Amino acid sequence: MTLSVDLNADMGESFGPWVMGNDAALLEVVSSANVACGMHAGDWDTMGPTMSLAAKNNVGIGAHPGFPDLQGFGRNRMTMPLDSLANLVRYQLGAAQAIARSVGAKVRHLKLHGALANMASEDKDMALACYRAALDVDPDLIIMVLAGTQQNAAVEELQCRAACEIFADRAYNDDATLVDRSQPGAVIHDPDRAGQRMLEMVKAGAIITESGKHIPTRIDTICLHGDTPTAVKIAQSVRGNLEANGIKIGQFAGHPFTAD
Amino acid sequence: MTLSVDLNADMGESFGPWVMGNDAALLEVVSSANVACGMHAGDWDTMGPTMSLAAKNNVGIGAHPGFPDLQGFGRNRMTMPLDSLANLVRYQLGAAQAIARSVGAKVRHLKLHGALANMASEDKDMALACYRAALDVDPDLIIMVLAGTQQNAAVEELQCRAACEIFADRAYNDDATLVDRSQPGAVIHDPDRAGQRMLEMVKAGAIITESGKHIPTRIDTICLHGDTPTAVKIAQSVRGNLEANGIKIGQFAGHPFTAD
Amino acid sequence: MTLSVDLNADMGESFGPWVMGNDAALLEVVSSANVACGMHAGDWDTMGPTMSLAAKNNVGIGAHPGFPDLQGFGRNRMTMPLDSLANLVRYQLGAAQAIARSVGAKVRHLKLHGALANMASEDKDMALACYRAALDVDPDLIIMVLAGTQQNAAVEELQCRAACEIFADRAYNDDATLVDRSQPGAVIHDPDRAGQRMLEMVKAGAIITESGKHIPTRIDTICLHGDTPTAVKIAQSVRGNLEANGIKIGQFAGHPFTAD
Amino acid sequence: MTLSVDLNADMGESFGPWVMGNDAALLEVVSSANVACGMHAGDWDTMGPTMSLAAKNNVGIGAHPGFPDLQGFGRNRMTMPLDSLANLVRYQLGAAQAIARSVGAKVRHLKLHGALANMASEDKDMALACYRAALDVDPDLIIMVLAGTQQNAAVEELQCRAACEIFADRAYNDDATLVDRSQPGAVIHDPDRAGQRMLEMVKAGAIITESGKHIPTRIDTICLHGDTPTAVKIAQSVRGNLEANGIKIGQFAGHPFTAD
Repeated sequence: MTLSVDLNADMGESFGPWVMGNDAALLEVVSSANVACGMHAGDWDTMGPTMSLAAKNNVGIGAHPGFPDLQGFGRNRMTMPLDSLANLVRYQLGAAQAIARSVGAKVRHLKLHGALANMASEDKDMALACYRAALDVDPDLIIMVLAGTQQNAAVEELQCRAACEIFADRAYNDDATLVDRSQPGAVIHDPDRAGQRMLEMVKAGAIITESGKHIPTRIDTICLHGDTPTAVKIAQSVRGNLEANGIKIGQFAGHPFTAD
Repeated sequence: MTLSVDLNADMGESFGPWVMGNDAALLEVVSSANVACGMHAGDWDTMGPTMSLAAKNNVGIGAHPGFPDLQGFGRNRMTMPLDSLANLVRYQLGAAQAIARSVGAKVRHLKLHGALANMASEDKDMALACYRAALDVDPDLIIMVLAGTQQNAAVEELQCRAACEIFADRAYNDDATLVDRSQPGAVIHDPDRAGQRMLEMVKAGAIITESGKHIPTRIDTICLHGDTPTAVKIAQSVRGNLEANGIKIGQFAGHPFTAD
Repeated sequence: MTLSVDLNADMGESFGPWVMGNDAALLEVVSSANVACGMHAGDWDTMGPTMSLAAKNNVGIGAHPGFPDLQGFGRNRMTMPLDSLANLVRYQLGAAQAIARSVGAKVRHLKLHGALANMASEDKDMALACYRAALDVDPDLIIMVLAGTQQNAAVEELQCRAACEIFADRAYNDDATLVDRSQPGAVIHDPDRAGQRMLEMVKAGAIITESGKHIPTRIDTICLHGDTPTAVKIAQSVRGNLEANGIKIGQFAGHPFTAD
Repeated sequence: MTLSVDLNADMGESFGPWVMGNDAALLEVVSSANVACGMHAGDWDTMGPTMSLAAKNNVGIGAHPGFPDLQGFGRNRMTMPLDSLANLVRYQLGAAQAIARSVGAKVRHLKLHGALANMASEDKDMALACYRAALDVDPDLIIMVLAGTQQNAAVEELQCRAACEIFADRAYNDDATLVDRSQPGAVIHDPDRAGQRMLEMVKAGAIITESGKHIPTRIDTICLHGDTPTAVKIAQSVRGNLEANGIKIGQFAGHPFTAD
């Protein structure tokens, strides 16, 4: 039996005249792309070309909704009512679906962005509100979640299609949370090391923490970043190391967590 | 054979804490509702309840995209590139479709708003860009156009599903354009008069101008306004007068203009 | 010696085509107006006329900055970095000053709006960041604070000009916080009762809580609301009851809290 | 007598997480900086550091207001009512003044951006509305205008302080308008050529058109661009060539056009 894993990255994060990231290069490495939907980044003009190029490269397309906070890039936490949050997710997902359709593509998955993702990873009710809203719009959508968080708990409860994600460039604490960015070693900048640890985790089927603890978890996809100088190199190293060790890179299947 | 006509009005034009219009009252009179999509009015929270109430009243739901100009309510003309305009229409239409789906409803038609509508009624290329963009997303969509304008010419060329609209409360010039609002008599405030002239035009199958000239045109729907003090009274008068004279009120069929 | 107190209300909260509040009526009752600055409400067109009418009625003008969240009316909490928050306050204050100057008026005070005010009333560092930013722009500005909160503590530390505010229509807990809106009796709707308790508090120089406890505090101004059906009646009752009992209504002097 | 001229460039055009231009390099070449004010580019966080660095380099600071169109970078024409346009200019100017004050600097001039500038260069009423609005806020403000356009006519009529600008990298038609960007040679990419022609025009006191025609005009400042790959090189070439030929670079005095 062959192990297989997906690689995902955020894309389409330019806005108006401002360019961000290196989407074309990343789209040659990843198998899934999370496309910004106009609220924290991306606009009506950026979404179509990004999706079109993703489809051409056989990369799965995801909607990547965030808080309506362009200046803060969706990184400021906002305490919106859950109903409003649900509508906000529906709105962005719908916009993404329409743009995808117009370039002959399809939105296959959804991943929350920035502070919205962080809050939903701590608060199952918020995660449920966002995911239910998305599934109202498309029941076949695959929900991408941060492994080991309340996002993960939410898709287990919903029994919807899901993909569990770990980070290529972030160190983990023993409770499966990320080491705070203010700590030394929290962010991994060395492509070789990122490649090596992703191989270990995928083979182990577990998050491996800074202390060496193994936390068994379903690993469907690895999150790569596109907005740092070494981003593309880390992405290439992760992919190269996995493939060199017999692990296939491809879009996640999106199996649901079924009830026992 | 029974004559039948649709009545339409703009709705869902509240935003955040600000309320506009009297949607509930109008939804008891009209057969089609044009729902704002978040760029010039409406937001992710207003769209669902408006569509839900429309569906409950058996009122057809339309997406009503406008320029991204909340402060100006989409009434300032903007010279956006046609490609960007097309993407803007797709974005808003998609958002509306997703919100509709989440309340068990469906977007059946599309009507341009404000300055975007005015510009497209003078410029067939702009109308074509907007309508093609919408039909990319849903080829079965019915495009609502201002009768006798370049919008009308565009749907004739596209041979898409269409509905032609006249205004209940605006006087017409002899070239089928609207009398400028600065002229006396340009806007009809008297519910009885509005009701009477709509009956005449529908029976004649023609726009009847201030001078009495008849301009034959397909009339599928009558536009009622919701944002004036007498709006609901005018709407009720138009409907009452049509029904009292044997004309049925109901959603337009959306027949295309077929090539000869 | 004559007791004197200021009455303040939020104003200029319309946006684009959407009207909110009854500014003209309130401007005949209050002595200070907090004018929205375009981020949570108000726009470049609403500010001037509001300020002009305030000046004509001899009402003091304040800038009323809020979070950049129009859809949420600045009522969603946002975790912006303090530096960014400081710049946001400067930006809105400057816009208000320029508009004031163009109508021959002057911004005399500053009051934080909505969630920004709530957060600053719990967090002295946030209050300090906002107030220092405002005083950078105008060192003579009077800072309006919620009496008994961290906002109050901040102006005591800064020794800047200040005005301490109590609420006409909100019940207080024994720790000087407001009774949560979900509790019965949290909001006072009866104009007579609002008038009576304001008279008591001003005469006592203390917040009087639901349990009858007196919390001595400096009271420079009373906050009246403008966005409820009974708002103007409550405002008139408070003013009438104070004046009938010999308390003068007028703009606060803005005395600083001096060090001992 | 020594000839002297100012060099100006647009700056502070980053927004939120998106970086634009090379402000630090340009601030070592120019003598005046036009700082974006948050509507078409720039935000509350970008303005202060840009102004602070300008002040440190002894570069004059200008407010650079544009249309409220972030996605279009203020390059889409908008037909706003003149009153609203005036308020929009006041709002942005005031924000810039406050931010400037907070970094110990001062807004010395104002220049319109993008489509707003283009429209005002063709329409004296629009130029007058914008400039009067700015002078309401600060009567000593220097208005930077496109030489030979309706902007220029407006400041002659107002007799306000003014600075007349020519472009380093754009070819001119015989009526002093710019050669359309679609024409060959419309944009000058060669730093040497840009430097040479600026020297010729400044010495001649005239715009020199593609055909060689001289159009006498007051030249107070030369506009350099910052957003192209060769921008800094062109800027350096223009400055170097002027200085090598005895022309001093320094902030414009802002003399008004006085009535005869």
